Amino acid sequence: MPGGRQAGGEFSLIARHFTWPTPSADLGVGDDAALLRLAPDMQLAVSTDLLVAGTHFLADTDPGRLGHKSLAVNLSDMAAMGAKPRFATLALALPSVDEAWLAGFSAGMRALAGQHGTELVGGDTTRGPLSICVTILGEVPVGRALRRDGARPGDEVWVSGTLGDAAIGLALLTGSPAPALDAAGAAACIRRLEAPMPQVALGLALRGIASAALDVSDGFAADLGHVLERSGVGARIEVDRLPASPALAPFVGHPVVRDALLGGGDDYELCFTAPAAAAGEVRNAAALAGVAVTRVGCVVADGGLALVDGEGRPLQPARTGFDHFG
Amino acid sequence: MPGGRQAGGEFSLIARHFTWPTPSADLGVGDDAALLRLAPDMQLAVSTDLLVAGTHFLADTDPGRLGHKSLAVNLSDMAAMGAKPRFATLALALPSVDEAWLAGFSAGMRALAGQHGTELVGGDTTRGPLSICVTILGEVPVGRALRRDGARPGDEVWVSGTLGDAAIGLALLTGSPAPALDAAGAAACIRRLEAPMPQVALGLALRGIASAALDVSDGFAADLGHVLERSGVGARIEVDRLPASPALAPFVGHPVVRDALLGGGDDYELCFTAPAAAAGEVRNAAALAGVAVTRVGCVVADGGLALVDGEGRPLQPARTGFDHFG
Repeated sequence: MPGGRQAGGEFSLIARHFTWPTPSADLGVGDDAALLRLAPDMQLAVSTDLLVAGTHFLADTDPGRLGHKSLAVNLSDMAAMGAKPRFATLALALPSVDEAWLAGFSAGMRALAGQHGTELVGGDTTRGPLSICVTILGEVPVGRALRRDGARPGDEVWVSGTLGDAAIGLALLTGSPAPALDAAGAAACIRRLEAPMPQVALGLALRGIASAALDVSDGFAADLGHVLERSGVGARIEVDRLPASPALAPFVGHPVVRDALLGGGDDYELCFTAPAAAAGEVRNAAALAGVAVTRVGCVVADGGLALVDGEGRPLQPARTGFDHFG
Repeated sequence: MPGGRQAGGEFSLIARHFTWPTPSADLGVGDDAALLRLAPDMQLAVSTDLLVAGTHFLADTDPGRLGHKSLAVNLSDMAAMGAKPRFATLALALPSVDEAWLAGFSAGMRALAGQHGTELVGGDTTRGPLSICVTILGEVPVGRALRRDGARPGDEVWVSGTLGDAAIGLALLTGSPAPALDAAGAAACIRRLEAPMPQVALGLALRGIASAALDVSDGFAADLGHVLERSGVGARIEVDRLPASPALAPFVGHPVVRDALLGGGDDYELCFTAPAAAAGEVRNAAALAGVAVTRVGCVVADGGLALVDGEGRPLQPARTGFDHFG
């Protein structure tokens, strides 16, 4: 029952699976705390996410994909702030020690960390129901972060990549109603669910261009709602413009797909606003990051989110986002 | 199943219970990440701990004490580094939303945070088996941190406060063998278990004096072992010198108490080493922090931990620390 940080086997578990090189840290895993230094004139960006088996992922998810995703959702928060991810800590509760599972989980996380130059500097492992808490530390030049409160009337609303794939992937895995995708399309949607790619490069490229940003984790409509609330504005979204992947494009008339585009979580794309005059800069930033971006609507002064169809007629979404305590 | 950060009711749960003033943060709870700045010439100290119901605490623990303890164990890591705690993030998995429980948990954490000037800058709440992950950020002047690897032969080994109380408190709560404490002594031991006081002031006062330090979370012998391993030295500990509280002092001959002094976890005292010539400075630092310290042995060149009795005869501990994956 006691604190149980890094004693005996737990310590060696960290040593075996989670002690990777940390060239940028003054002190990494193995002391009471890691010691780090930031570049001068930088703000530290900090975010934490807790993923719980059965709530955020299926317990039989491939461990490599789960390791990837556990870091990806946090990298996505850095992307949404326009921050460069630098360091992460991992706290892991496991029902038992399964070396093969740990090796897969570690490899998945390490590969993604390596792609983003992010170093794992602290760890805590303990026995318990499977859950994963990653805290990420990034840096952004003072005053340049992409916050949620900067959207202004006249700005345009953009979204990166495609929406809804993760929600359809989940529907396929759980046997919920879903369109009849072919095998490749189904695999692509499940991959989006289990191994999302955070838009870190796009977030960095949008510094100084986007007026507000966040990542789409709870569903486009719900997440955009947070920007509108924090910014004190409204938005008018043309639902027919919401970008669908090649897998989902043939099914955009399917009600489950329409719901997924608007309300499906776990896509980890960026939703952002930018002045209309900056549309060219947005497209250049997206090209620089190698990411497609789509203009889906505009910011208006009146509060609230208005969804309209191709002819401008109001729509009501069937589902606008997930709430674990709704 | 999706990401489920701050949608709807979850967001308002954070707003209701975990949005406290964050005067030192550039941006606190409510965006994709908090934005912070450190003082110049400071290293950032980062540590994370995951507490799981049934592994680290009894599920029926008073929520106020649990909120206190969840932060205390992390403050203790800052104490062990000689770092000043500045900011924390909280990730909380709850089986259900119990407003009274949340209010108690929040109040307990907030009171301790206030005592240490530590601001809660990020949160994540989700549905799941009760578990609590706190990540703490502190600062320490570059090169002044109390690391585990600085113990040298000839140094003395010190411990703050008293040991074993938390382990006896746990034994009392779980009906395990324990000495026959009176009601006040039992309550004191249970309080040590459930609401430990991190030795932050002592850690700060020991900067430049202690050669190595950590906090006693897994048990004195196991934790000292980490210092010895990281420093490449051994130690000779006079077990009869291990400090017992007034509650336990009458029972130091009881085998359960002897085990608790050496191997009981969750005390969150500091174990540290310092050159013999610095003993006066150690005592001054302890007086400054208002904490008792006890010299319990010395660092030797040979590897390993030797436990001796009052006459210098070798002892073997029955238990040297907890290991959640032993």
